[in-house]
Amino acid sequence: MTTQPYDLVIRGGTVGTASGAFEADVAVRDGTIAAIGSGLAQGAREIDARGKLVLPGGIDTHAHVEQVSAGGLLNADTFESATTSAAFGGNTTLISFAAQHRGNDLRKVVDDYSVLAKRGALIDYAFHMIVANPDRKTIETDLPALIKEGHASIKVFMTYDLIKVDDEPLLDLLLTARENRALVCVHAENHGMISWMGRKLVERGYTAPKYHSISHPRGSEAEAFTRLITQAALIDQPIMIFHVSTAEGAAVIRQARGQGLKVFAETCPQYLFLTKHDLDKPGVEGAKWMCSPPPREVADQDALWQALALGDIQTISSDHAPYRFDETGKLSAGPNPNFKQIANGLPGLETRLPLLFDALVSKGRPEFAGRGIEAFVELTATAPAALYNLPRKGAIQPGFDADIAIWDPQREVTISDELMHDLAGFTPFAGRTVKGWPERVILRGQDVVAAGALKAAPGSGRWLGRTGGRAAEPTGRLTLDMDPATNFGANIL
Amino acid sequence: MTTQPYDLVIRGGTVGTASGAFEADVAVRDGTIAAIGSGLAQGAREIDARGKLVLPGGIDTHAHVEQVSAGGLLNADTFESATTSAAFGGNTTLISFAAQHRGNDLRKVVDDYSVLAKRGALIDYAFHMIVANPDRKTIETDLPALIKEGHASIKVFMTYDLIKVDDEPLLDLLLTARENRALVCVHAENHGMISWMGRKLVERGYTAPKYHSISHPRGSEAEAFTRLITQAALIDQPIMIFHVSTAEGAAVIRQARGQGLKVFAETCPQYLFLTKHDLDKPGVEGAKWMCSPPPREVADQDALWQALALGDIQTISSDHAPYRFDETGKLSAGPNPNFKQIANGLPGLETRLPLLFDALVSKGRPEFAGRGIEAFVELTATAPAALYNLPRKGAIQPGFDADIAIWDPQREVTISDELMHDLAGFTPFAGRTVKGWPERVILRGQDVVAAGALKAAPGSGRWLGRTGGRAAEPTGRLTLDMDPATNFGANIL
Amino acid sequence: MTTQPYDLVIRGGTVGTASGAFEADVAVRDGTIAAIGSGLAQGAREIDARGKLVLPGGIDTHAHVEQVSAGGLLNADTFESATTSAAFGGNTTLISFAAQHRGNDLRKVVDDYSVLAKRGALIDYAFHMIVANPDRKTIETDLPALIKEGHASIKVFMTYDLIKVDDEPLLDLLLTARENRALVCVHAENHGMISWMGRKLVERGYTAPKYHSISHPRGSEAEAFTRLITQAALIDQPIMIFHVSTAEGAAVIRQARGQGLKVFAETCPQYLFLTKHDLDKPGVEGAKWMCSPPPREVADQDALWQALALGDIQTISSDHAPYRFDETGKLSAGPNPNFKQIANGLPGLETRLPLLFDALVSKGRPEFAGRGIEAFVELTATAPAALYNLPRKGAIQPGFDADIAIWDPQREVTISDELMHDLAGFTPFAGRTVKGWPERVILRGQDVVAAGALKAAPGSGRWLGRTGGRAAEPTGRLTLDMDPATNFGANIL
Amino acid sequence: MTTQPYDLVIRGGTVGTASGAFEADVAVRDGTIAAIGSGLAQGAREIDARGKLVLPGGIDTHAHVEQVSAGGLLNADTFESATTSAAFGGNTTLISFAAQHRGNDLRKVVDDYSVLAKRGALIDYAFHMIVANPDRKTIETDLPALIKEGHASIKVFMTYDLIKVDDEPLLDLLLTARENRALVCVHAENHGMISWMGRKLVERGYTAPKYHSISHPRGSEAEAFTRLITQAALIDQPIMIFHVSTAEGAAVIRQARGQGLKVFAETCPQYLFLTKHDLDKPGVEGAKWMCSPPPREVADQDALWQALALGDIQTISSDHAPYRFDETGKLSAGPNPNFKQIANGLPGLETRLPLLFDALVSKGRPEFAGRGIEAFVELTATAPAALYNLPRKGAIQPGFDADIAIWDPQREVTISDELMHDLAGFTPFAGRTVKGWPERVILRGQDVVAAGALKAAPGSGRWLGRTGGRAAEPTGRLTLDMDPATNFGANIL
Repeated sequence: MTTQPYDLVIRGGTVGTASGAFEADVAVRDGTIAAIGSGLAQGAREIDARGKLVLPGGIDTHAHVEQVSAGGLLNADTFESATTSAAFGGNTTLISFAAQHRGNDLRKVVDDYSVLAKRGALIDYAFHMIVANPDRKTIETDLPALIKEGHASIKVFMTYDLIKVDDEPLLDLLLTARENRALVCVHAENHGMISWMGRKLVERGYTAPKYHSISHPRGSEAEAFTRLITQAALIDQPIMIFHVSTAEGAAVIRQARGQGLKVFAETCPQYLFLTKHDLDKPGVEGAKWMCSPPPREVADQDALWQALALGDIQTISSDHAPYRFDETGKLSAGPNPNFKQIANGLPGLETRLPLLFDALVSKGRPEFAGRGIEAFVELTATAPAALYNLPRKGAIQPGFDADIAIWDPQREVTISDELMHDLAGFTPFAGRTVKGWPERVILRGQDVVAAGALKAAPGSGRWLGRTGGRAAEPTGRLTLDMDPATNFGANIL
Repeated sequence: MTTQPYDLVIRGGTVGTASGAFEADVAVRDGTIAAIGSGLAQGAREIDARGKLVLPGGIDTHAHVEQVSAGGLLNADTFESATTSAAFGGNTTLISFAAQHRGNDLRKVVDDYSVLAKRGALIDYAFHMIVANPDRKTIETDLPALIKEGHASIKVFMTYDLIKVDDEPLLDLLLTARENRALVCVHAENHGMISWMGRKLVERGYTAPKYHSISHPRGSEAEAFTRLITQAALIDQPIMIFHVSTAEGAAVIRQARGQGLKVFAETCPQYLFLTKHDLDKPGVEGAKWMCSPPPREVADQDALWQALALGDIQTISSDHAPYRFDETGKLSAGPNPNFKQIANGLPGLETRLPLLFDALVSKGRPEFAGRGIEAFVELTATAPAALYNLPRKGAIQPGFDADIAIWDPQREVTISDELMHDLAGFTPFAGRTVKGWPERVILRGQDVVAAGALKAAPGSGRWLGRTGGRAAEPTGRLTLDMDPATNFGANIL
Repeated sequence: MTTQPYDLVIRGGTVGTASGAFEADVAVRDGTIAAIGSGLAQGAREIDARGKLVLPGGIDTHAHVEQVSAGGLLNADTFESATTSAAFGGNTTLISFAAQHRGNDLRKVVDDYSVLAKRGALIDYAFHMIVANPDRKTIETDLPALIKEGHASIKVFMTYDLIKVDDEPLLDLLLTARENRALVCVHAENHGMISWMGRKLVERGYTAPKYHSISHPRGSEAEAFTRLITQAALIDQPIMIFHVSTAEGAAVIRQARGQGLKVFAETCPQYLFLTKHDLDKPGVEGAKWMCSPPPREVADQDALWQALALGDIQTISSDHAPYRFDETGKLSAGPNPNFKQIANGLPGLETRLPLLFDALVSKGRPEFAGRGIEAFVELTATAPAALYNLPRKGAIQPGFDADIAIWDPQREVTISDELMHDLAGFTPFAGRTVKGWPERVILRGQDVVAAGALKAAPGSGRWLGRTGGRAAEPTGRLTLDMDPATNFGANIL
Repeated sequence: MTTQPYDLVIRGGTVGTASGAFEADVAVRDGTIAAIGSGLAQGAREIDARGKLVLPGGIDTHAHVEQVSAGGLLNADTFESATTSAAFGGNTTLISFAAQHRGNDLRKVVDDYSVLAKRGALIDYAFHMIVANPDRKTIETDLPALIKEGHASIKVFMTYDLIKVDDEPLLDLLLTARENRALVCVHAENHGMISWMGRKLVERGYTAPKYHSISHPRGSEAEAFTRLITQAALIDQPIMIFHVSTAEGAAVIRQARGQGLKVFAETCPQYLFLTKHDLDKPGVEGAKWMCSPPPREVADQDALWQALALGDIQTISSDHAPYRFDETGKLSAGPNPNFKQIANGLPGLETRLPLLFDALVSKGRPEFAGRGIEAFVELTATAPAALYNLPRKGAIQPGFDADIAIWDPQREVTISDELMHDLAGFTPFAGRTVKGWPERVILRGQDVVAAGALKAAPGSGRWLGRTGGRAAEPTGRLTLDMDPATNFGANIL
């Protein structure tokens, strides 16, 4: 037995996995985790990680990058700026969107975003394909082909005038996803309720950003979840519900999962750390905290933490959607817009992991008592990799990509606009002090961030082709409605 | 004390009320119930009701009469034929529809139906206003005025391409109903699911009428109920859910009522006595059993009876919707239509009460053990009158209109197409033998049906103007979303 | 047709029934309601009831009278004093207890109470048989015979050291009740939890009466309900759950009823109008508000009103249990007892109806919007008569006993200890002003109370023999556990 | 950096952890996992594991060994025979019982079992202390001391005449557990229902073993779970519910966990692979399949798998309870006992893991789609170690004990009585063929079983002292009942 030398050994840190944390060296060879253990042989390079946490690089599975909104507004980040920001925030993989608008050709959309990402990304990446134009070509031709080519997740909006997909085409999409084994991710809010509330509020003169938060009635979330789940259950297609914000929404998901339905869910830091009261600022300043769905109440935060601990919600993404607080972004309708005229979205790539590390590891949210490291790794790396079937990502495990973030658990940092590397120009978490910071970020064995400096070049990130994997597999159990045996032989699936 | 003479005494029958059944005479004076008791003084006319049940005349609160469908098909009945049929079936009051189509002026619609009804009706009547064109004039001008004039209920469809009302205009309607205290009745099914299933079935060659039953997925009902209830709850507006067909739908209603929401519900004989298997007939014969939602399973029948007994569903109507089984009706698209081309609807005015009497009184459904008469009266007369606030209707009670049906509890009748007095030409209940038959029907003290013959003239029925009454009152409890105290002062209601 | 003259006509009042309220005369002949209507013939006696409510006499189905507690304490009332108090409170029927203690012969117990009641009662009455000694003779011999003789309801305690019935003998009791068609009423609280909490509180020095309220943990009620329902469901035996006090308890009942189980329930004014804070008085004064279960929170009151409106709880009794606030009663253990040494129970026969009239009719609890009179009649007379199958009681209906209370809806009365006619010496509702008062109480056509004076003699009340009736009928649906078809043929029932 | 040599390297197998499975070498030094990776340095010993699964040794946390039943019957196994059987079944750790009977001194009981285990055990072990005599000394003196000494779990029976603990002493136990941070494990069935059903069945002549299965009504499980949870919730004490057998029981647990209660649960192979029909054998043969609770229905099996996949049930133990099918065991009451006279319990130490491996890994239960290895490891090793806080056990993780089972995933074995190494003389799973077998079992780096032979000596197993750990920590959230702030300052905890 001849042992090959290691390229890199990260020595003496506390290694975190989704099922345990322990002191060990981590050895890397050819960009891959080669060994984990004590007293491993010398590496060509060595990193002293004593007193540090050696964790899988974060995977952010929901970010809008270099994307044009339905309203024609380009968001503030490029793939270069976004992945730089993500890397500084401890991430090594990003899933952003290839966003179709009405009238767009989906293949062209994917191609265009691929070009942008290939040029700019300096961490690994994949796309969810946003479908806003579910015509025959998209459904029958483009989606099957693109899924087969490695784009195995679709995103749909149930709200927003210009891109929402109604129930009937949603079923078409779910069916094509089922036939081609892709996961369908959904922004699920009741469009009519939001539109009506917004209109009524503005009509009555309630126009400040804080009214955005009540223009999305709480029930509009649980309602849309129920509707979506009813439709997905009809044809036994797995779904991922994005950015859960309310206790009632989480309860709907729990109930569905209890029935054996394949319903996955995500939440975001804005729903765990902000409330609607954060929007209550003088003038239009509150616009910086505007996102959809809006932050809710403290009781909702607690319910979401509980849902995460119970496994009802499996992952936490940023939903990074960067619009500058100026005429190119939030104030594109002028200096005094009403809340319906303000672009929704917050930057969050860089703050997601520090906020969660602080809450889970440093402060030890009680729902995860004593398992903060495991929960952090699971929710931000292992589960995202599993749900979206990212090959060899999401864990410090022999044979996996050596995507590693080394965290200093003692370092306290006060988040500020200036600290951020994205181009939004502000962060809704400014002023918060967190304990724990990613001091070194390694992608496939190579430094991306070290000693506070960027070490990787644009384009060094790789696209991750992937099949739907097990999350996208139907359960195989049909509803009464779809069982030919009890429906006069009718076979729709 | 001088006692005035009675015009009519119905002597020696068993009088049924919603809270008791007892042997007594019923005396009528000036078209009104004057006294109930034993040994009442002689009347100018006397009816010997020994061995008979003396019950309030039935109130059928859901029937399509002389109505043009959204597709342009005129249904088979006139107000004369429909009210004749209703009277032979033991009814003395009918609520049919003033049905707006897209582009119609609601006031004109109500006026037109009023003219037709005034000319033809031979029992008392009122209208639900169907709103399919919820434009500003309808919402802000016509509805408030018409409600004030005595048309205090609105009907909305959440499905059917040409008349459905989407979520946002539905909220407008609910709000105007709230402000003007009208009850909102809803045909609640998920349009997209039905449309998608129908399309898929036809595409795959499943075109027979029986496939209609599976083109309305079970979940499309509970989903729409949840969505509707979410919206009504948002603004605290009472609703009436029409024709509940599934166990899941009934469960959604039970849950909402348990939360204190003002959700009322109706079912129909087709959901209590038919199943989807009734549609499974050779050729297009099954079209006679096609209605929407479709009949379901025996387990659903049981769940609906249970929901009636628990008070979750409060009333049973016919949803009479008469289309002849010929080219003027069911076969208007030709002799071999696919099920999507066949008009939905069943005749039922004349069979509703006999079927229910047989089930509740003669056979004694166990859910109502020993309270069959009371349940029959409550579900078919007293509750309908209360829910729709029909003045002095629905009970044999001093001071109320002397609207009375005298039932022979021993008479067995086999229902047949020939027996019916409506113009549909068939009944989906043909061949069933029921025990118990209304042998005499009296409206405001005057015979309408006696000895098997019609005694009343077209136009003798009166329009019943009504306010929304207590069913239409909001509960006064606001949701979190609508409470200005917790929503930055915003006051939408 | 010769009309017989009336003995009594109550003229011009508003007659209340469970399904309607209307202006009418009420005529009585031979102690029975003869007719209801307008302009009835002259009676031998006439009462002018214009401006008054003419309602069925109240039926109080839960009162402890002339009863020795398990601890040997005789309660303060005799049948004479209790029925006098009940009559002044608007009642014409009372169900009290024939209370077996350990070692007692049940037949002798029933005989003894029968003698006492026959001598003293001046309104009609019946007994629930308390079984505390479920030995073979009681179960197999005495109960079947006594039920057959007209004592068709049993009461069991799941708590209290000296009389509680454990799960296994409870099943014996439920089965004998099933076989003989008797309703089983249950005081359902978890004994161990109460005993443990009481012990811990006293050990730690929390001895004041107010701690009684927390010595009965909220969960001890819902727990016992679940346990009881599980056992009753096993053998399909109807049950009546006495004195529901918590929102959680009401929720358990609602769920059980939703499953089609025959679970009935009662609450009492102390749970609708008092809270645990009423026990928080100086010294041992709080003892006057001590009952079991204890009053809870305002939120529980609201939940109970809601449960009443939804039909989950069907009746309201007093649970009259009179112990004087002196050494013969509450202070029998000395002047400074700890709360475990104080007899539980409140007087309430005389205040039940005025409190409820005030809440339902005068103030109009919103849960019953516009149906206050009907709800009052239903909950205090009609439903009790139906549940316990009291013949010809509970409604103003031709052929029924002329048990009538005439209420002055305008009269305001401040409740005080002095006003009461029972022998407890105090009322926990002292100081409350109610609007509406029963000014005349008539039993089978004869005055019991009129013009503030007692008109009936002890012994004029009649015992009401009764079968179990429809409430006591099993549903006929077996659980999986009891179905021989799926249990290797085993047939236990 | 000098690298120390490895004692053992297991090379080329597929290593399974709770969060992933991957090909890697596993190196052991000083009885501890030293490294996991590819191309590890040579060990003093090498095992070729290519094509094999390298998994953590199984941890069986529920087995009755060398235990005398409450009825005085000694079970068939010694610590030597039991741990031998466990080892052949792939296990390296066992938790059995130190079983107190009424009147026993708990410390002496623990001492006695410790002596037996120390002498006989050849895998590592710990004890749950069964408390059947919750007197003051046990509660206040012995339990606190013994927990502190490393026996940090208690077991209680809610049923069985001679050992059951009633509600009030159960609360005493829960409180002492809370104060000393021990997990409380419970056999939760309603004693009265079981006792009553058993008596009725025998009275009516249903005496065969199969009737045992219906003598434990399904509801007796969910009822007891609810009661137990209510009590544990009252004082915020974590509990472990043993051997869940019904869908309803699993649902109760799911609901409790959804409320944030610390309720853990276990099931066993007999509830996943057997049904009540297995007891339906000629004569008394069915006695071999008798355990409590009994196996249920196929639908329950499905519900339990689902509950495992959802995390509602966290672990699977054997509940090994070996009674020979002869006069020393099952037939101790004679050759023709009725089912109440037959000792309850099945052997299962040796079959647990092969059955589960076959179901999860080889056949791939769909609930765990694609995660069979991870689920197997989690449910049988990692979760048990975490729940019972077994130090350095339950995972192949650097620094943990080198407790390893090497499985041949291709080997097919037909289970038979002869194959077993315990002393029960039979296995209820005889005749089943499973795919996958543990071919080598290693404890702290040393062979226990290899090449089908036992390699370890009695006494080589070590006792595992442990604190309650995080599973035994209260949540810190009090119920309303226990919050001094709302309870007049009363502080019980």
